[in-house]
Formats: sequence, C-alpha cells, structure tokens
Amino acid sequence: MPNYKPLLPVQSPVPEDIDIAQSVPPQHINKIASSLGLNEDEYDLYGGYKAKVKLTVRDRLKEAPNGKYVVVAGITPTPLGEGKSTTTVGLCQALGAYLNKKVVTCIRQPSQGPTFGIKGGAAGGGYSQVIPMEELNLHLTGDIHAITAANNLLASAIDTRMFHERAQSDEALFNRLCPADKNGKRTFAPVMFRRLAKLGITKTNPSELTPEEKGRFARLDIDPESITWRRVMDVNDRFLRDITIGRGKEERGQERGTGFDIAVSSEIMAVLALASDLSDMRERLGRMVIGNSKAGEPVTADDLGVGGALTVLMKDAIMPTLMQTLEKTPVLVHAGPFANIAHGNSSVIADQIALKLVGEEGFCITEAGFGSDIGMEKFMNIKCRASGLTPDCAVIVATVRALKMHGGGPQVVAGTPLHHDYTSENVELVTKGCSNLTRHIENAKRYGIPVVIAINQFASDTAAELEAVRAVAMASGADAAVVCNHHGLGGAGATDLAEAVVQACSTKSDFKFLYEPDLPIKAKIEAIATQVYHASGVEYSPEAEAQIEKYTRMGFDKLPICMAKTQYSFSHDSSLKGAPSGFTLPIRDVRASVGAGFLFPLVGSMMTMPGLPTRPCFYDIDLDTTSGQIVGLS
Amino acid sequence: MPNYKPLLPVQSPVPEDIDIAQSVPPQHINKIASSLGLNEDEYDLYGGYKAKVKLTVRDRLKEAPNGKYVVVAGITPTPLGEGKSTTTVGLCQALGAYLNKKVVTCIRQPSQGPTFGIKGGAAGGGYSQVIPMEELNLHLTGDIHAITAANNLLASAIDTRMFHERAQSDEALFNRLCPADKNGKRTFAPVMFRRLAKLGITKTNPSELTPEEKGRFARLDIDPESITWRRVMDVNDRFLRDITIGRGKEERGQERGTGFDIAVSSEIMAVLALASDLSDMRERLGRMVIGNSKAGEPVTADDLGVGGALTVLMKDAIMPTLMQTLEKTPVLVHAGPFANIAHGNSSVIADQIALKLVGEEGFCITEAGFGSDIGMEKFMNIKCRASGLTPDCAVIVATVRALKMHGGGPQVVAGTPLHHDYTSENVELVTKGCSNLTRHIENAKRYGIPVVIAINQFASDTAAELEAVRAVAMASGADAAVVCNHHGLGGAGATDLAEAVVQACSTKSDFKFLYEPDLPIKAKIEAIATQVYHASGVEYSPEAEAQIEKYTRMGFDKLPICMAKTQYSFSHDSSLKGAPSGFTLPIRDVRASVGAGFLFPLVGSMMTMPGLPTRPCFYDIDLDTTSGQIVGLS
Repeated sequence: MPNYKPLLPVQSPVPEDIDIAQSVPPQHINKIASSLGLNEDEYDLYGGYKAKVKLTVRDRLKEAPNGKYVVVAGITPTPLGEGKSTTTVGLCQALGAYLNKKVVTCIRQPSQGPTFGIKGGAAGGGYSQVIPMEELNLHLTGDIHAITAANNLLASAIDTRMFHERAQSDEALFNRLCPADKNGKRTFAPVMFRRLAKLGITKTNPSELTPEEKGRFARLDIDPESITWRRVMDVNDRFLRDITIGRGKEERGQERGTGFDIAVSSEIMAVLALASDLSDMRERLGRMVIGNSKAGEPVTADDLGVGGALTVLMKDAIMPTLMQTLEKTPVLVHAGPFANIAHGNSSVIADQIALKLVGEEGFCITEAGFGSDIGMEKFMNIKCRASGLTPDCAVIVATVRALKMHGGGPQVVAGTPLHHDYTSENVELVTKGCSNLTRHIENAKRYGIPVVIAINQFASDTAAELEAVRAVAMASGADAAVVCNHHGLGGAGATDLAEAVVQACSTKSDFKFLYEPDLPIKAKIEAIATQVYHASGVEYSPEAEAQIEKYTRMGFDKLPICMAKTQYSFSHDSSLKGAPSGFTLPIRDVRASVGAGFLFPLVGSMMTMPGLPTRPCFYDIDLDTTSGQIVGLS
Repeated sequence: MPNYKPLLPVQSPVPEDIDIAQSVPPQHINKIASSLGLNEDEYDLYGGYKAKVKLTVRDRLKEAPNGKYVVVAGITPTPLGEGKSTTTVGLCQALGAYLNKKVVTCIRQPSQGPTFGIKGGAAGGGYSQVIPMEELNLHLTGDIHAITAANNLLASAIDTRMFHERAQSDEALFNRLCPADKNGKRTFAPVMFRRLAKLGITKTNPSELTPEEKGRFARLDIDPESITWRRVMDVNDRFLRDITIGRGKEERGQERGTGFDIAVSSEIMAVLALASDLSDMRERLGRMVIGNSKAGEPVTADDLGVGGALTVLMKDAIMPTLMQTLEKTPVLVHAGPFANIAHGNSSVIADQIALKLVGEEGFCITEAGFGSDIGMEKFMNIKCRASGLTPDCAVIVATVRALKMHGGGPQVVAGTPLHHDYTSENVELVTKGCSNLTRHIENAKRYGIPVVIAINQFASDTAAELEAVRAVAMASGADAAVVCNHHGLGGAGATDLAEAVVQACSTKSDFKFLYEPDLPIKAKIEAIATQVYHASGVEYSPEAEAQIEKYTRMGFDKLPICMAKTQYSFSHDSSLKGAPSGFTLPIRDVRASVGAGFLFPLVGSMMTMPGLPTRPCFYDIDLDTTSGQIVGLS
C-alpha cells in the first residue's frame, strides 16, 4: 500500500520497541535544532539528545505566520492503548521525512508511574518512536520532578503555617513574619504586599499596622476541612491515597486526613501547560487556592508567601524539551499526561513555539490524551481558550481491537493474552463497535473543524475489518479515514494519513467552543455531560453541591471545566462500552484550580493515584552495567 | 595580610551572596572541562554551566598518579553555619587561581529542604562561591530527584506487594509473577534469579517448581512491623514524620504507621556516595534490606523485583556534576549533605575522578559535613574504607563566633539578631570555647594525618580574638592554624591557608581507622561514643537492643557504623557545648543500610525530617520575570 519506501531498515515481525529505539543512532540535537531554524543561543543542551528551548524564540518569530495546527486524540481505548502517541509520531515522520513538510510533534512527558507500573513508557512504538526512548520515559529534563517539588513545598507550607498559628499570638506571628533587623526596623517581604493588597491594607511600614490589621495579615486561619491541596508523587503508590499526617508527638495533635495524587495531576502541571510566559506562570502559581479561612475567604499560595519560590522551582520547566523521532523529525515534549484526572494536553507554549518554527506551510501536530470526551474536550474548551489558538484539523485514532471491544468483545486486560476474537476476523463485531467511533467523530465535528480518522493497523487486522471501519467513519461525517501502518513501517506507513491531514488543513474551518465560560458551573458541567458524554442528567453529591455553592460565592464560577472521568467509557462507568446514553453522571466532588484556571469535578469513583499490579513493569527493567544500556523498558 | 591582590572586584562591606554570584559571568563549562583535561566525549552538557562527567574518564586515567587528598570539616557549629563550604571553595580558589595548582573542589549537592527552609543554600558565600549558585541550590542535574523517585518506587513496591499477597493464594501469586505467554509458556524475569539463588532454587523453568518452592518464591511474607524503609521527600515537611497510610477503603484495612524522611537521608543517597561504579551500584541497590519476613529472613529490593528499575532511575545520577567557582576553578558536585542523619560526604566517584584529573601535583579538596564527630568520622571510617583512599591532610574550619558560643555565650538562633557578645571583643569567652576546637583537633589527629585549622574571619572579629584561637590550635597539636578571609576577598583571602595545606600534604602521614569492622556492633558504637564523643557509656533502648540482636543474627554485624547524631554537640544533647564528657549516649533505634554498607544507629531524639519555621526562606525568594533572574536566594 505505501507509495513510499521505508527509510528505516524495517523488519517483520516488528522487534521490541526498545530494540528498535536503540538500533537507530539519534542525531546530535544540535542538528535537529538547526534544521528547525533555532539559533544556538535559543536552547540549552541536556546531553547530546535533549535540549530545552527558550521562550525567546517565540519572541523572535512573533511576526511570523503560524503553521497548521492539528490535534490528535483517540476513540475510547482498551487498557492496552490504541497507539495514539505512535500515530502522532508516525504522522509526523510521514509529514517530515516523506512529504518534506516542516513539522513539529508536540507530546507530553510520560509519567514514571505507568512506566514502572502497568502501561510502560509513552514514546510511541515500533518504527514510530521518539528517541532516545529511555530519556523520554525517565527523568527527561526534570519538569515533573520540579512540579513535585513545588507542589509539596506548598503542601508543607500549609500544615506548618497552621502549626505555627496554633502556637502563637497574632503579635508573635506578625513579629516572626516581619522580623526586626539589628536596628529594630521591620520590613515586608515583596510577596507580602500581595496579601496586604488583598486585605485592602495600603501601609508599607509593618510598624504602622494596627493590632487588628496585624492579626488579619498574619493569621491565615485556614479551615483544615477546606484544604483541597494534596501532596503528589510521580510513583503509583496506592497506599498514599488516603493517609493521616501529623501523628508524631512533636506535631502536638495536629492530625489531618489527606493524601497523595500522581504528580502529573498537580494543579502546577496544569499551570505549566496553560501559562503563556514566566510572568503569567508567576501570577497563576501565586493565586492557586489551597482551601479557605474559617471565615470562608480563599487562601492562596501568595497568602502563604510561597508563590515566588514555586516560580523559582518551575523556571526551567517552562521551557519545552526538544527531542527527535526515529526519522529525525523534531519533537517538543512538554507538560503531562493523564487526561482523565488532569488537563492532559501538551503545553500552550510548546504549541506556540512549534507553530512559529514550522511557519505557514508547516505543521504542529499536538497530542491530546484519550478520546474526544477527555483530552480533546479539554484541548478545545480549556487549552484553546487559554492560548487563543484554534485547530485546523482533528485526527482521531481508531483500532479494530478497541472497536471490537466496543462491539461487545471480551474484556481486555493488560498482562493477560488477548481473546481469540481480537486476533481473528470478525467484521460484525467491529462494525457493531463503530458506534463508539461515530460518536467521537460527531463530538469532534461539533467544534467546526475537519476530522480525519487514522485507522491504526495491527498485524492481525483483516482488509475487510479495516474497510468496515473506514466505511463507518466516512458515513459518520469524517473528512477522511485512512488505514496506516506506521508501527511496522515508520513514516512510510502513514503517508496516506499525512496527505489526508494536509488536505483537511487546506479546507476552511469555523471553530466554536462547546460552552461559554460565563454560564453557571452546573450548566457547564451539564453541557459536557449531555452533549459530549450523552448523559441524561447529572447528579451531585452533597460535597459537590457545597463546593459549587462555595466556589460560586467566591467568584470562581466563570472558570471552564476540567472533568476527572474514566477514559474507558463515555460515561462514568468504565464497563459501559460503545456509545452509551441515558445514564446519570455522578459528580462526587468539585475542586477549584484557580491558578490553572478551571474547576475540576470528580466524576464517580475516579482515582487520582494509580496503583501497581502484582507484577509491575519494573520486574523487567534493568541496566546492562557493561554497556550502560537499559533493558526491558517498554 | 594577603600577599596576593584579589582578582575579583571585591567590595566592602561584602554584598549579598546572590548579588556577587550574579555579577560574575561564569565561563562556559566547556572551558572549565577542557582546562581540567576532560575530553569532549567525557561529559554531557546540562545547559552552559553544568556538565555531568562520565566515569570513562576515570578508566582513561587509571594508571595516572593521584593528587593530594584533603578533607575539610568544621568545629561544632552554631545554627548559622561556620562557613565550611565557603572555606572549602575559598581554599580551592586560592590553590587554583593564585598558587596555580591544579585543584578540584568536591562538594555535596544542597538539599532543597534547607534552601527553602531555614538555612538557605549551600554554594559557599561572599567571594567564595560555586556559580551559578541558583543552579547548584535548585534542581542541579536532578540527582536528588532521582533518589527520591527510586526510594519511593521501592516503598510503593513494599506495600503493594503485601496487599497483593494478602489477596492471593501462593499459586495465584506465582502465576501472576510468571505469567504464561500466548503459548502457555512461563519464564522468570532475570531479576527473579537473584531471589531463586537466595532460596537455593536452581531450576530455570517456572513450571518445574514444586508448590512449596512456588510459595517460598512468590510469597515474601513481609512482617509489617519490621519495615525500616521509609518514603522520602526533598522538602522540610514535619507533618510527614509520622503518618498512617492505607486508610482508603480500596486498601482494605491494610493500614500501617510509617513516615517520610528528607530525601538526602535515603539509603540510596549513601549508595550513590559509596558505589564504585554502575555495576557496584546495581548490586548495592538490589541488596538493600527493607525489613524481614515473618520468619525473620531479610527482604531485599531484589526480592521485590525492583533492583534493576532502581538502577535505571539512578543511571545518570552516578555521574558527578561539573561546575565552577567565582574564580573559575573546577568543582564536582555529587551526593548529599545532612551528615548528621546521613553519611553526608561527597561521593567516592567524584573524589576518584578529581584525584586523577588533578594529577600528582594537584589537589582534591573534599567536604565532609559538620565536625570531626560527624561528617569527618564517617569520611574516615566509612568512605575511606569503601574507596581505599586515604587523606593527606584534614582542614578544620573554626570561627570566633562558634567558639564564643562554646565558651558559654548566649544561644545563637537563626533569624534573630546576634547577641552583643558575638559582635564585640571578648577574648576570654573565645579562649574558653576553644576546648571544642582542641577536641576536634585531637579527633582528627587520631587518624594519623596532618591537621590544618582554618580560622574563618568575620568582620567583627578582633586581632586578639583570632590570635587566641590560633594559639590554642597550635598548642592542641595542629600542624598549622591560619586566619583567612576568603569571604571578603575570594581566593586572595585564603592563600596562607592554601600554602599551609600544600605544606601539610608534603609531610608524611600514617593513616589509621578508629575501629575494625569485624568488632561486634556495640563495640563499634562504643568506640565512636567514647573515643570521639567522650561519652562515659552507651545506653540502648529495647528497640535498639532488638535490632542489634537481629542484625547480628542476619550477619550484618560486620558493617561499619553511621551514627545519626546532632551536629550541635559532641553529645546527643545539642545544649551541651564546648567539650562535654561523662554523659551516657542513648541509642534509640538501629537501622541497617545493607546496600550502602553500614548500620545506622539513631542517637537520642534525632529527627530524620526537618521542619519549617514561621517565616521560611521562601518568603524572600522570587523570580524577576522580566530578567528571568532569581532574587532572594541566600
């Protein structure tokens, strides 16, 4: 089928991902940078194959026209994943290495939780990968570690502040916060003026504050029950989901129930993804709300005096990391995955840099996590609203395997062999499951843009099955539907897809959002629930009701919505496959990510910290200490 | 006093550390590397001012002679610190930039806990600093983050394994650990052969194991009460000292009391500091003991299948980070601080590389945390035993301020102005406090090496006070005692010290350890307690007694000892200043760091997780978002 001969020395059957990745020597990242038009002073090397790209390049190219903007999402996946990252990478290899377009792939940094847990890494697969895959899957350039450090510094500041407030009078607290120097003079730290302004205190000399003002300034009086800020870790550690802290006798009985989330779900990750520059990031980090005072006033990171320190911890993370594909096309890695429990899109900054670097005739291919109901919905309604950018085309990745599951096929479980239904022809099953694909197409078309279906071919798929999917896709309103085999052939297997994307991007689009942010909170939740998920209605727990009431009172009701929902169904129930409708969507709780700029409803029993299976991926991972090469990473 | 004119544009009074650091443009690290004789393929750049040095350089220089090896420690400090890092850096600036010696400074990576907490950063100070100081004090090249990730992956593996073992039969566990492939064939992961060997099972085909062998292999049967492995975080978070985990209903009642330590106290940090190469690190990480089975057998990281994954997480951390001083001499940053609750020395690998790079006429100046009773004792008895290296000279840093405190001066508290006693002349007070210095000199001389006292001059010290210290030092057996002012003058202020060190290193030394490792555990603890601390005896809690008995039974009694003791006194009681003796040293608990290779007694109420004060350093730290420069970091 391919019109192009693969440039990579492809083998069949396709070897293990890590073996392919290690068999292709990467170019020095200097070469990738220079072919992309980056000046030498516009990036910092991190070894020979990674570089952090400075935001100054965006300033330099301010007046240059943007390239075409393509978002890649998927249908509702099986737990094995449907090759969305692989397709994103394969499409870019096709555009760059075969169609000779300027292209940048914008993907998210993998979390080490899944890398060592169930799913393995997230560098793509087969002959469509980002390399070195071990660099991508491990620490990369430290962005997630920076987020973890910042998130947990803020958490520590909260509990410690409550501890010191319990032990001290207003006067003592104030005197400690504004200590006298050796001449007896007290001064406010610059960050303190943010709190003073919020309190309406305009005095600049601490000694001039009245006792009442000193008390209001120094005592945050945080209501422990209201704290929504949790600690995070980039490890799948289920035993940290619900914990009691402060049990030591030195903590004098200040126990509290709280827990850890996976690091990528930190609000700070969302701030990174949505910030437009350092200054915007500083403001967002400072206004993050961690809970409220006993009087009901929101308490922010800047109230705790820590907004600046958080920014300092995040100053390098704001730069996307340049890497390359197996076929030497450039990749920008930035922000994080987990579009189910987080925002789950690559960053605004990475996309903006990519669009400028590729120029008018080029392409920025950006990945959104999971389906049109998850990462793509958040891409459209949160990320595009933040960036002002609009996509020229959406690509939806579908597989025969997942569609068979939606048609009623047996359960697919990671780590156990696939049922025979998935490895032999069953056109009826796959056709039945196409209801899922149809709904994703309808969801994507709602935004007024062209939609291209990438049918990611597996070795056991038959021509009849693939054609069945293609036919349903076209009948459902897709602008194109293309079978591709970039896993087995690299970019040569995705040239038809690439051509379809080029064609789609040349058609006129008329982008529109799903909802307006100034609707009431419930109206926005219900717009997503009914129009995207096809719920018949929404049910709120008493906690959720109370939070909605509170956030409305606090003035946070104009924020867009970032739903935390399972990726395995359009509904909250992961066992409801295909295109369910008529269910009632349960909202368990609502949190406010005021710095990131969205409200965060938790749907059903959605977990914000994954666990490890009996036999985690880490069993296979080791280092060949002679060669220094990693083995067993997938 | 200086014979040399400062090369830096020094000002008086000395500006803020960060202002000095940001006023001196660093050289590109390429230049530092090449002047040190590193080939371009022997390091990886991390931006323009940091590089990770590959261990291949040590192989290349295998036959080259070592330089002189100098360890820097201090007297018993005040909470403000006595400028030990500053003196280490100043000495190297003097050696390199003024005496034209080849020199490498080996320092430890600062912890972000203190950076944002009480103490601030650890790049040195004044005109003797490592730059860029903000790079050093923040994420550097991610080593501590890698340690945190590895430590917590192991922690998660422990609780998760107990969880899955509770829920499953031996057979089910075994089948999950060795899943059948699509042909029904089961295989052992390579790491599993380590456990099989330990169990004396030589079969290589999982299907051939008897049910009893399957049970022994698959069920670790960890005794939850025995678990000594704690989670870590590089944040001062006192509310994580004692926590209860597993309180969620999905964890089915498997609650457990545990806690977090500061990341630098992780055994994995000690493994990094003491490992000789990748292969040795792999073995050490795999044999780390996390607790024991209900039958009393030690359970290791490799029993949990995670030793390889830990190594993979640590593969880049094993490379020291090259930086530079204000006077462009090279610095290797590696391993971690907190010599009170950890090993607290720079790494064996960094010192070995430094000794080879400087060559026979050159100097490797390595820092040990705190006093002769803390970091230096561990340097001599743990690190030198691991490396086979022996020091040519010890430098002990003393200040008039700390000696006045030891003489009975008022309490010194961080964040509050110094008492008048410390800022005006009081020769009697300082002379009285010299008992502390005398004991540090005696402790250091015990190892059979020359000892040089660096009297780190502060602006308010008088000539009479400085002379009093010098006289006591010489009378106590020091080989030299030199007043220096590298804080105010850079290397030019430490040329006398540098000449004294050069001289001391040319004298013959006769290195000996304090104790032999094959002594019983208590005998080793008592050797340190009586001979170094001057305790009259040691008192063991019942927990400590039980652990000593257990570790002796398990065969871990031949390991050296790494005491966790306050740095603020020779005793366990930080209020006992000067040179206390006759006290009974309480041992609260003993842990075994089998991978690092030492036993870890906890002395008194020593905390392994610091807290934050009412007004942490973070209040002053912010980013100037226009210039991108950090402000307020100290």
